[in-house]
Amino acid sequence: MINSFLMIGQSNMAGRGYLSDVKPIYNEQIKMLINGRWQTMTEPINFDRPTAGISLAALFAAAWQADNEQEQIGLIPCAEGGSSLDDWSADGALFEHATFLTKMAQRTSTLRGILWHQGENDSFAGRSNEYLDKLALLVDQLRRLLASPAIPFIAGGLGTYLSSGRYSHYFAEYENVNQALLTFAQETPNCYFVSANGLTANADGLHFDARSQRLFGIRYYDAFQTKRHVLAPLRDEKERVKRLEERPLTKAESTALLEISFARGEISLPELEERLARI
Amino acid sequence: MINSFLMIGQSNMAGRGYLSDVKPIYNEQIKMLINGRWQTMTEPINFDRPTAGISLAALFAAAWQADNEQEQIGLIPCAEGGSSLDDWSADGALFEHATFLTKMAQRTSTLRGILWHQGENDSFAGRSNEYLDKLALLVDQLRRLLASPAIPFIAGGLGTYLSSGRYSHYFAEYENVNQALLTFAQETPNCYFVSANGLTANADGLHFDARSQRLFGIRYYDAFQTKRHVLAPLRDEKERVKRLEERPLTKAESTALLEISFARGEISLPELEERLARI
Repeated sequence: MINSFLMIGQSNMAGRGYLSDVKPIYNEQIKMLINGRWQTMTEPINFDRPTAGISLAALFAAAWQADNEQEQIGLIPCAEGGSSLDDWSADGALFEHATFLTKMAQRTSTLRGILWHQGENDSFAGRSNEYLDKLALLVDQLRRLLASPAIPFIAGGLGTYLSSGRYSHYFAEYENVNQALLTFAQETPNCYFVSANGLTANADGLHFDARSQRLFGIRYYDAFQTKRHVLAPLRDEKERVKRLEERPLTKAESTALLEISFARGEISLPELEERLARI
Repeated sequence: MINSFLMIGQSNMAGRGYLSDVKPIYNEQIKMLINGRWQTMTEPINFDRPTAGISLAALFAAAWQADNEQEQIGLIPCAEGGSSLDDWSADGALFEHATFLTKMAQRTSTLRGILWHQGENDSFAGRSNEYLDKLALLVDQLRRLLASPAIPFIAGGLGTYLSSGRYSHYFAEYENVNQALLTFAQETPNCYFVSANGLTANADGLHFDARSQRLFGIRYYDAFQTKRHVLAPLRDEKERVKRLEERPLTKAESTALLEISFARGEISLPELEERLARI
């Protein structure tokens, strides 16, 4: 049985880290739900936009799998770039789509948690004042609809880099949103807050870079596993990420990655065959 | 109201053409359904695998839109690489997923057609003998479930290149599948067959290359629009594709493409601003 996690929120949950900035994570015990079926996870996982890239969920999954070696983990990618909390209301398309896919996934997996990152689009025009109440309602509705009343809900903070950069005028209230996320997590059973302190952005000043998404992933996992808020960077987070990224591939995984490179036109047929022979 | 088309089948409907081989199609009147919502189409449309690329659907949509300038077209991407006809049975995940999304899309669009390409995975072990009956059942069930009993169904043939190449031993019966597709289309109202004659493959010998997907797209559109089978290459297909690919972008489209390039890290912030100023 697969252990599944729902990914919801906006662009920083979908992931915008550049693929070329980090070592890929490829592990046949880590799956993602595509077209209602499980397949081995590759990045980008959550293809909501042509800009989709590295998300925190891949490293989260790698950390979970390393601690549960005999089991499989499956991600359910439903995050949507640019979405506000109102876009996630229970009568809207995003909620309906995410709960439909999660219910499909629940037939072949046990739902273990919900990974949430959202709030940039509620950081202006007074929206942050309503964040706490709206999020509480959403989590309550999700838990009821998925028949998982105590399912862990992990919510990461917004990047402190939002106070500067090309689009910073859109995010005047981001600290209020972070406070609402923390308060909500402190007040609600099985909800945990994860600090984004120290994490950095792409050149757009909007999106966590790939390296930061990897660090965020280990923080999310730490919150999930220890059932505690992560209020500051973890002391050993860089080493933990490095260890997970450097996991040796199995023969089957090396073969699969070569077949993908060939199918994408990145290596020629003779090169494929020569490299397959060396595995 | 958007005019929508469902994309189903296996990898050659999802698309595996290399993105770098053709000019991108970007038109704000062409949408795709992601997370249950419409957004401007970009390629790959149907992200079923890390190898997803150029599909016939983009050029199909461009051709439709050019003939319906005041209207919008929307694609519903549900094709799944490697799927057999049995995988598409009405009690399976792919069918459930595709019909759920199409019914969501029908609230904000009028379904105008179904684009089908599948059969490679039914070209061996005697499976081709059952192709006609299984496809007829599937189309009947789709039309009933979507409350669209006369919806046009466009089915392309398998590439003749399948008789050679690295994986050719898997496709011994591909000509039988093509015959079944043609017979089905001839016998069933509002179903049209589209020949793949003359189209070529990537180095894998499995997947239509990007240029061929563009040509296939105009053939699919021709079948849809004229309500006739396309049994051979169209006389003017190359010119028609070229004309559609060379459509000038609007200011808003040029801006959006530059913002995407920047968000992907392909151009720097100064370069973005300098190029935006020149639009």
